[in-house]
Amino acid sequence: MDEQLKRRLELIYQAMKDHLFEGMIPFWCRRAMDREYGGYMTNFDESGNPKDMPVKNTWSQARYCWFFSHLCRTFAPRDEWAGLARAGVDFLIQRCWDQDYGGWYCRLRRDGTVLLDKKIVYDQCFTIYALAEYYLAFDDKRALQYASDTFDLLQKYCADTLSGGYYEYLERDWRVSPPGAACGDMKSLDSHMHLMEAFTPLFQASGREIHRRKLLEILDLIVVHMIDPEFGCGWNQFNPQFRPTPVFRKPVTLYPHEENRDHPDQSLHYTSYGHNVELAWLMRRALKVAKEDTGKYRKILRGLFDHAVSFGVDGQYGGLYRFGLHSGEILVTEKEFWQHTETLTGFLDGYEEFEDARYIDAFINIWEFSDTYLINHDVGEWRHFLDRRGQVVNGNLGQPGKVAYHTGRAMIECTRRLERLLDLKPTGADSGSS
Amino acid sequence: MDEQLKRRLELIYQAMKDHLFEGMIPFWCRRAMDREYGGYMTNFDESGNPKDMPVKNTWSQARYCWFFSHLCRTFAPRDEWAGLARAGVDFLIQRCWDQDYGGWYCRLRRDGTVLLDKKIVYDQCFTIYALAEYYLAFDDKRALQYASDTFDLLQKYCADTLSGGYYEYLERDWRVSPPGAACGDMKSLDSHMHLMEAFTPLFQASGREIHRRKLLEILDLIVVHMIDPEFGCGWNQFNPQFRPTPVFRKPVTLYPHEENRDHPDQSLHYTSYGHNVELAWLMRRALKVAKEDTGKYRKILRGLFDHAVSFGVDGQYGGLYRFGLHSGEILVTEKEFWQHTETLTGFLDGYEEFEDARYIDAFINIWEFSDTYLINHDVGEWRHFLDRRGQVVNGNLGQPGKVAYHTGRAMIECTRRLERLLDLKPTGADSGSS
Repeated sequence: MDEQLKRRLELIYQAMKDHLFEGMIPFWCRRAMDREYGGYMTNFDESGNPKDMPVKNTWSQARYCWFFSHLCRTFAPRDEWAGLARAGVDFLIQRCWDQDYGGWYCRLRRDGTVLLDKKIVYDQCFTIYALAEYYLAFDDKRALQYASDTFDLLQKYCADTLSGGYYEYLERDWRVSPPGAACGDMKSLDSHMHLMEAFTPLFQASGREIHRRKLLEILDLIVVHMIDPEFGCGWNQFNPQFRPTPVFRKPVTLYPHEENRDHPDQSLHYTSYGHNVELAWLMRRALKVAKEDTGKYRKILRGLFDHAVSFGVDGQYGGLYRFGLHSGEILVTEKEFWQHTETLTGFLDGYEEFEDARYIDAFINIWEFSDTYLINHDVGEWRHFLDRRGQVVNGNLGQPGKVAYHTGRAMIECTRRLERLLDLKPTGADSGSS
Repeated sequence: MDEQLKRRLELIYQAMKDHLFEGMIPFWCRRAMDREYGGYMTNFDESGNPKDMPVKNTWSQARYCWFFSHLCRTFAPRDEWAGLARAGVDFLIQRCWDQDYGGWYCRLRRDGTVLLDKKIVYDQCFTIYALAEYYLAFDDKRALQYASDTFDLLQKYCADTLSGGYYEYLERDWRVSPPGAACGDMKSLDSHMHLMEAFTPLFQASGREIHRRKLLEILDLIVVHMIDPEFGCGWNQFNPQFRPTPVFRKPVTLYPHEENRDHPDQSLHYTSYGHNVELAWLMRRALKVAKEDTGKYRKILRGLFDHAVSFGVDGQYGGLYRFGLHSGEILVTEKEFWQHTETLTGFLDGYEEFEDARYIDAFINIWEFSDTYLINHDVGEWRHFLDRRGQVVNGNLGQPGKVAYHTGRAMIECTRRLERLLDLKPTGADSGSS
């Protein structure tokens, strides 16, 4: 590595560490706890002031809980983080767990009463992710038991023994929801990726063979069914037999803008560059935890990174586009926070695997755009949504689902990788996965 | 129906009833109980005298237990049958259940100590089948709980969330067995059919949606992957992704005989006429219990019946061949008891669905051959194995796996169907499935 690049990466490393410890962690520690009703506050405006919060999403409460647990697992634990993690576990177990049918309700009012009692796999993923992480940080067997019970419920009620994979939308009593609007007939890369993500710390926590086996089955399922072999990028949604179906939830252009457009051919598939790169590094992490070599998966990983680096990175204004066609045409040029955080981690991860200089360039590009436009340095967190040029479209620092999971994780994952790359002394413990 | 056919069927009906109540039931009631070690005796010679019995197979203990439970559920219960059913449930729970890992050991010594502690899906099928039937007969919640727990273990440890269906050979701790000789990489029509068969009374017993859903998933899995769309018959064995593989366990010709031969092309698939027709009637029964119309499955059912009636029935000597090629060529002409009992039920079932006179002719042919050669009327049970002409090759009335399940069930299922066909007064209660 030449000295100039090394120096550049060292500066980014320092900026990320500062942002994590001086911006982000204080930001969330000050705001997270809902002292009135338990659990966490999630909605903050452009200045970081709390907004109305009619809903607590289980997946977002769990992401929060994961973050504070992960801080304690990674760095010298602090009482404040531990207390915040504990508040999340308590809220999840006391309020979100269905005592009658098992599993986690998907949506509650701020006061913890149930607003929507469906069982959505996405929520079950993140509670497993949080509770396994909490166990790994604090050795709390109750948390591991709930995570493990959730895993068992997924196997019994959500797994599809006809076509493989998991049904994603179920009723409170675990009947599969109707097809169509209720999504009972939908399978997605999103939920399956997050199942893979969740089973990774679950296996670390339990060491149980069945958790490892299901982790690898889902990883292989994604490889077999969910990645376009022609272009290397991911499909988003599928029918139960894994035939790709165009994305359901139009418009993908959330904030109409001159450069954004829907393709006139509605049968074409949009792919998300950010999601694809997130998938690649989560897949590589899952393989590491399962002690499986990347060998036979390298072509898949390569395809995911290459498609995003070739088409997703904005060479003119910087940052990462949201959606485009598999064949390369860009369709949605807006810049959203989470695709940036995930590709920061992901392109460093890709560089570790393949030593391809384009990935480091992409990392620097995306960091510079994020540092300049996405991060609100005055307050310490990331804005939600910008237009292509970096103008703020939605500057809120906490949307209902935007907590410290994407942003905080990226700073931790990136600094860990930069420490390895630059031969720096690690700041925290290696969690065995990053 | 013409008077001659009606008269013929009435005679068969009476012969079957007599055989059941005067031959078979007394035969098994006198011999079944192992008064020394609990559970059941399974090995009897040509005269019905007990033979050495080094092994108790869990699946065969369970089949026995199913039979006595089914008698009580179907006819006016007798203390003797109930006591025999109870002896099986007690032996299963006390001896065959793995207290540490859950599930059923597959093989024990006669004294009930464990001989082989692997977890084989085939055994799990028949314990579910027996315990659900026992619950239906006696309302014993303990039996339903064990059946239901076994179902849960199958979902967690045996279901393949990558390709669908179930792994069939697992170690004691539910790791999938190695590939090759240990069969960890094998899936079969046999085990999947018996899972479908087992989930049928399980759903009747529990009324639970998940039991119905998994019943229908496995039924559809068989339709999608396990039936040859070109010829209508079943494939036997598959790799985990359901690519049909030629049968593993050669030779299929158990007793070499002039008319039997292996086909020189080892890549060709043998199909079992008896198994295919058993599949058809079990499928039709599953649909009935699930309250699903046969409508969209009629083509599959028709294919299974037609292939067997076209190629499997021996027009010269009577009875049913064992194996042939999908394209119709007969390869193994031996006559084995269970293919005859299952096709007796099956061809009557096919006649109920399609009113095809060939199926009634096949039923009569197979009964006449069975009545003349297979049934040992002096003692009351069926011989195991004959050559094509009906000469006894193995006249034992109880092989390790041959208990009253195939033979007893056929007499009950056939008399029930003949009562409907001939407008006769039912002898016993309709179990809601036959």
